[in-house]
Amino acid sequence: MTETIAPQRTAGALIPTPDITPEELQLAVRNHSMPLEALHHAITPVGLHYLLIHFDIPTVDVANYELSVGGRVRNPLRLTLDEITSRPATTLTVTLECAGNGRARLSPRPMSQPWLGEAVGTAEWTGTSLASLLDEAGPLPEAVDLVFTGLDRGVQGGVDQWYERSLSLDDASRPEVLLAYAINGMPLPPQHGFPLRLIVPGWYGMTHVKWLRSITVADRAFGGYQQATSYHYRTREGEGGEPVTRMLPRALMVPPGVPDFMTRTRFVKPSKHEIEGRAWSGRGAIVKVEFSDDGGASWARARLEAPVSQYGWRRWTFDWDATRLGEYELCVRATDEAGNVQPVDPSWNFEGVQNNSVQRVAVVVGALHEEQVSADAG
Amino acid sequence: MTETIAPQRTAGALIPTPDITPEELQLAVRNHSMPLEALHHAITPVGLHYLLIHFDIPTVDVANYELSVGGRVRNPLRLTLDEITSRPATTLTVTLECAGNGRARLSPRPMSQPWLGEAVGTAEWTGTSLASLLDEAGPLPEAVDLVFTGLDRGVQGGVDQWYERSLSLDDASRPEVLLAYAINGMPLPPQHGFPLRLIVPGWYGMTHVKWLRSITVADRAFGGYQQATSYHYRTREGEGGEPVTRMLPRALMVPPGVPDFMTRTRFVKPSKHEIEGRAWSGRGAIVKVEFSDDGGASWARARLEAPVSQYGWRRWTFDWDATRLGEYELCVRATDEAGNVQPVDPSWNFEGVQNNSVQRVAVVVGALHEEQVSADAG
Repeated sequence: MTETIAPQRTAGALIPTPDITPEELQLAVRNHSMPLEALHHAITPVGLHYLLIHFDIPTVDVANYELSVGGRVRNPLRLTLDEITSRPATTLTVTLECAGNGRARLSPRPMSQPWLGEAVGTAEWTGTSLASLLDEAGPLPEAVDLVFTGLDRGVQGGVDQWYERSLSLDDASRPEVLLAYAINGMPLPPQHGFPLRLIVPGWYGMTHVKWLRSITVADRAFGGYQQATSYHYRTREGEGGEPVTRMLPRALMVPPGVPDFMTRTRFVKPSKHEIEGRAWSGRGAIVKVEFSDDGGASWARARLEAPVSQYGWRRWTFDWDATRLGEYELCVRATDEAGNVQPVDPSWNFEGVQNNSVQRVAVVVGALHEEQVSADAG
Repeated sequence: MTETIAPQRTAGALIPTPDITPEELQLAVRNHSMPLEALHHAITPVGLHYLLIHFDIPTVDVANYELSVGGRVRNPLRLTLDEITSRPATTLTVTLECAGNGRARLSPRPMSQPWLGEAVGTAEWTGTSLASLLDEAGPLPEAVDLVFTGLDRGVQGGVDQWYERSLSLDDASRPEVLLAYAINGMPLPPQHGFPLRLIVPGWYGMTHVKWLRSITVADRAFGGYQQATSYHYRTREGEGGEPVTRMLPRALMVPPGVPDFMTRTRFVKPSKHEIEGRAWSGRGAIVKVEFSDDGGASWARARLEAPVSQYGWRRWTFDWDATRLGEYELCVRATDEAGNVQPVDPSWNFEGVQNNSVQRVAVVVGALHEEQVSADAG
């Protein structure tokens, strides 16, 4: 039932920077991306959705849990989880991606969670409208920012902090922003923010504060570490840089054939293959997906299906003629209606955020042996 | 709401071998261990249980799914999932650990999934008895081994293969061996082996074949890659080595205090702290857990609670007096009733299996600032 096949090819060209540090490894074995074959699923099953947890997953006793809404409001609120779940509920299908997705493909590589390109997932989030809660709290005229504080605490960049991010009053008031307590029809598991998290469709993951304990309406721009120091696109020392907000477009494919365990190089039978994948953007609908089997030298248009929702990814397929034996580098790129196109080469920055350069999959087309299962075992 | 704290200490001593390769990183971002704080949970929530997937997660259409039981049997069987789930059901709480857990702490480091020490989880597995199904199939007198074949295929060590492992007829006939279709009361998610997997309580994870498609009764010892080539403890070139079977004892603690994002060094307030964790062995009940705050130079006995089940881990606690400021290396070690004790130093072998050397957690005891949340944000 086992056979030796042709020499393996190491996908060396795909990862330009060697020497992952022990600290990066500690993060990589804790956090995890979505295995690319999970792109088969329109809705990512729990356990396959990407996870990035800055500090520790807090243990929350729901009996003692309250969300507080305070600061510059007329009517400060404290709500139990029951009070939140008894409010009008909305379910939205949302594609969520880490801002650092693709970081480990930059050279030199910024030190943080070393994502390769698969830090994404799409889930059905159920929750209640933040805007409606805000209406009840009544922001005062001087209100500028809303600060969202999690129950997770740690040290980052030498700063002892609770995880905190902010949104402008305008961004927070959009109707699609949810306080979510369920994923795929189930209560949030601990790792996704139990009992309550923020969902801001279209934005990168750092915005969707998990284990939400308080919302504070402030009369000035929030200056916390995760807002003012981290999550900026900066290419020169000392510059302020652009804050990271909405997701740039990205397409990913399910790698065809079967993998080599160690190199992840793919082995594909010579034949015609339907390649499938998903594409998304937080800056406008996906309008085009293109496929390349020559490392991005030439491109052909893929077929697009309807998006799974207004805020969810869009399935695409491409009929790939892989009848010629040999080595290939498959690529895919997406374009959104705002005109953003995935670049072929990464765009370097200090934090390694927003690297939406195209996916590259090393494939060997050759004779694979037919299915044989325990043929000599009986 | 943010404060600068004392200089960070890199936990350099904990990971002796630097330079993780790009290939190891690809595995590390796909697979994931159990974040240590999940030791709080007696039953590991789905999504936090460790996962090691050799090839790709297969997509299975249940309508076309059948388990075949064949080879050297009087009465070959083919069963749909409905036929399997309508058989008598058993639920067992089982602690499951990867045989390669701790591999990345060896030096030189064997090239494979680079686990640090947290590749474990405990779940409630529901399924039907394999022994009962075997009775119906009726192994012939010459039956020796049962070969379990999964639906996952790939190349490893240059060998094109379906994932396959075997058990002796005796081991497979034990009453606790299950064909499981549910975890924690829910149908198996794709990554845990949907629709059916093997559960062999007490054994390392490679035995628990996921996406089970067939069971073949054989008249000779199985010689497949994952059985005869891989998963052996070998310290010299060319030796046959000992096959990996049951789990050696291990204890893990929930790291106290709060982490530094990048180094995972822990910051702890000077005080008395109850340290908690879990311990398990596949070779006999855990009879002793010991704690050290000086890197293993001295040990003190922890309190043991009852195990969560016959095949599940056992919670332990220790009152740690951390009133003296400074740096510590916390360790914990377990002993089972068969007399197996976790070693302080790793025991090197070619595949990096069965490294159950003690956990080490770098801690700085010092003045952490009191809880302050968005104090200046209003």
